[in-house]
Amino acid sequence: MSGLDLGALTPSVAWAGDRIEIIDQTRLPDEFTIVELASVDAVVDAIYRLAVRGAPAIGACGALGIVIGLDESRPRDLPAAHVALDALVELIGSARPTAVNLPWAVERVRDAALGGDTPGGLRGLALDEALEIIAEDKDACTRIGEAGRAELAGMTNIMTHCNTGRLATAGWGTALGVIYAKAAAGEPVRVLASETRPLLQGARLTVWELEDAGIDVTLMPDSADAAAMAAGKVDAVIVGADRIAANGDTANKIGTFSHAVNARYAGIPFYVAAPLSTFDTAIASGDDIAIELRPDDELTTWRGTPTAPAGASVWNPAFDVTPAGLITAMFTDVGVLYPPFDVSIPSAIERVAR
Amino acid sequence: MSGLDLGALTPSVAWAGDRIEIIDQTRLPDEFTIVELASVDAVVDAIYRLAVRGAPAIGACGALGIVIGLDESRPRDLPAAHVALDALVELIGSARPTAVNLPWAVERVRDAALGGDTPGGLRGLALDEALEIIAEDKDACTRIGEAGRAELAGMTNIMTHCNTGRLATAGWGTALGVIYAKAAAGEPVRVLASETRPLLQGARLTVWELEDAGIDVTLMPDSADAAAMAAGKVDAVIVGADRIAANGDTANKIGTFSHAVNARYAGIPFYVAAPLSTFDTAIASGDDIAIELRPDDELTTWRGTPTAPAGASVWNPAFDVTPAGLITAMFTDVGVLYPPFDVSIPSAIERVAR
Repeated sequence: MSGLDLGALTPSVAWAGDRIEIIDQTRLPDEFTIVELASVDAVVDAIYRLAVRGAPAIGACGALGIVIGLDESRPRDLPAAHVALDALVELIGSARPTAVNLPWAVERVRDAALGGDTPGGLRGLALDEALEIIAEDKDACTRIGEAGRAELAGMTNIMTHCNTGRLATAGWGTALGVIYAKAAAGEPVRVLASETRPLLQGARLTVWELEDAGIDVTLMPDSADAAAMAAGKVDAVIVGADRIAANGDTANKIGTFSHAVNARYAGIPFYVAAPLSTFDTAIASGDDIAIELRPDDELTTWRGTPTAPAGASVWNPAFDVTPAGLITAMFTDVGVLYPPFDVSIPSAIERVAR
Repeated sequence: MSGLDLGALTPSVAWAGDRIEIIDQTRLPDEFTIVELASVDAVVDAIYRLAVRGAPAIGACGALGIVIGLDESRPRDLPAAHVALDALVELIGSARPTAVNLPWAVERVRDAALGGDTPGGLRGLALDEALEIIAEDKDACTRIGEAGRAELAGMTNIMTHCNTGRLATAGWGTALGVIYAKAAAGEPVRVLASETRPLLQGARLTVWELEDAGIDVTLMPDSADAAAMAAGKVDAVIVGADRIAANGDTANKIGTFSHAVNARYAGIPFYVAAPLSTFDTAIASGDDIAIELRPDDELTTWRGTPTAPAGASVWNPAFDVTPAGLITAMFTDVGVLYPPFDVSIPSAIERVAR
């Protein structure tokens, strides 16, 4: 069986020589539209209105946005270029206040660009650094994917949650990175995607991007996890992560914990896929992770149509915390981590820091 | 604390002397509308378009529909009344082909009415029988509610799934019957309602009917069950049932099984509330219950707005089967049944048959 050509797939963010090309995620799944961003205003707007989403994808778009901004402002000398650079970092870096990757990426591009002797040299260094950020993210995704592929040898039917693929990263994703790695290696893979209420990232984005890649994907309600596992439809569950504590407790999209409990009950392995940058060893355990509550109307309306009585009392947590004890292994860019995670996680981080 | 006055709540189906009054459930939660059904056409239409739904509520509406039909056709003699009766049973009984309660109820009204000596006497017996069907359903709901209330003494925070209340029955419901019983007794009760994808009966109907009754209810995504239990928000889970096998395995709305697995993991009791008529001892275990699959578009659109790519492959089971081993006890109209259910269920059924 010949493998999927990953290079032939449209990435969420790409550099096209003098502009950025993004998949407009606000139009998915209804329409597949490539939007060209050739001005700073367009970059900021795309980030602000979630046309590009997913922390690594936002970082990549913002980093390239600095280059767009330099091309647009055409500084005539080095001091003018430095002023322009600072203004761009401020403008683009604050397009979404809570996205940590965004200020990190634009500041990294600025710092690299400051090494330039001329406006042109500065612009060249900025572009190199932005492309390096994208290359690093792609590389991390590829390593995560390969780590997971080796561990999942012989497993075909994979349940996943939310969207953790090429729409969320500059590469092939974290949990979906494993799926793409299996497909690229020509291994059989079938995905069962839970829709991920309330914002339906699974239904809208995961189903779209896997279908677009020609990978077998089936959509199910989040609550069908127990039934799917009992029916023999699931060999393994793989999810991404928002933040992982030093002991392995994992914060991720609401519903992850429920899938993990059901996997344990059914005797099915449950994996977390994430780069080492997602691990936060300053946090000892999941008890120290606060649960962010999202707006009520995510549950009471769908694109303006009521789904519940207006003004209903709502509990809408953005994520939940899966206890480390329910996690079989973690796929990272430095290999597979196994329990006990309170040993393997600090050890992996120490290894990299050396 | 004074209790809720259940008699002051609008029932889903009521007899108003010369017409039926129903809550139009197709307009919930946007609008609360009472529809008057004064012709057979209106009764059939209301059942067909799901303005009235829930097996016992449909049966009650159909039974009263026979009386409406007799009033409308005004048979001049007994043979004409018998002809009218048969035509009405045929017409109303087939308004929804899969609703077992509907033909059962209209045939029961017909059989009782046949004892009449005159068209007027026949009409009187038909009405008596229809009201008796409603009274029996109310009585069963009340007994279920009281059985559950006694068992749940001291438990305040109740998670439930789908809609099992006065919108689904002629009385106060099964699982929600327990909630109403607690409220009527003046006991504190707070309900956490899972929205119940894909058709959102929890969000649209359970939240509406409990709010309307002044009962504290909070809506959450189905997948937030594990997080809610870990956060200490749940003292017990109560659900209804579509069909219960001889060993206690319970078919109910998709998502019930997942809630049950999570309750077991969290050490929280999980209860099923259902009348004895829901138990099917011809079925040995859940293995013999076929999983009905529902249309794909329930998952790919919401009232016409896409929620997933058109034509996506979908797995949309109508229900799942919760293994008896996950069920703490069952609240029925003949009292509380405890494990081992393969003993307590046949024993309860035998006791009633005597």
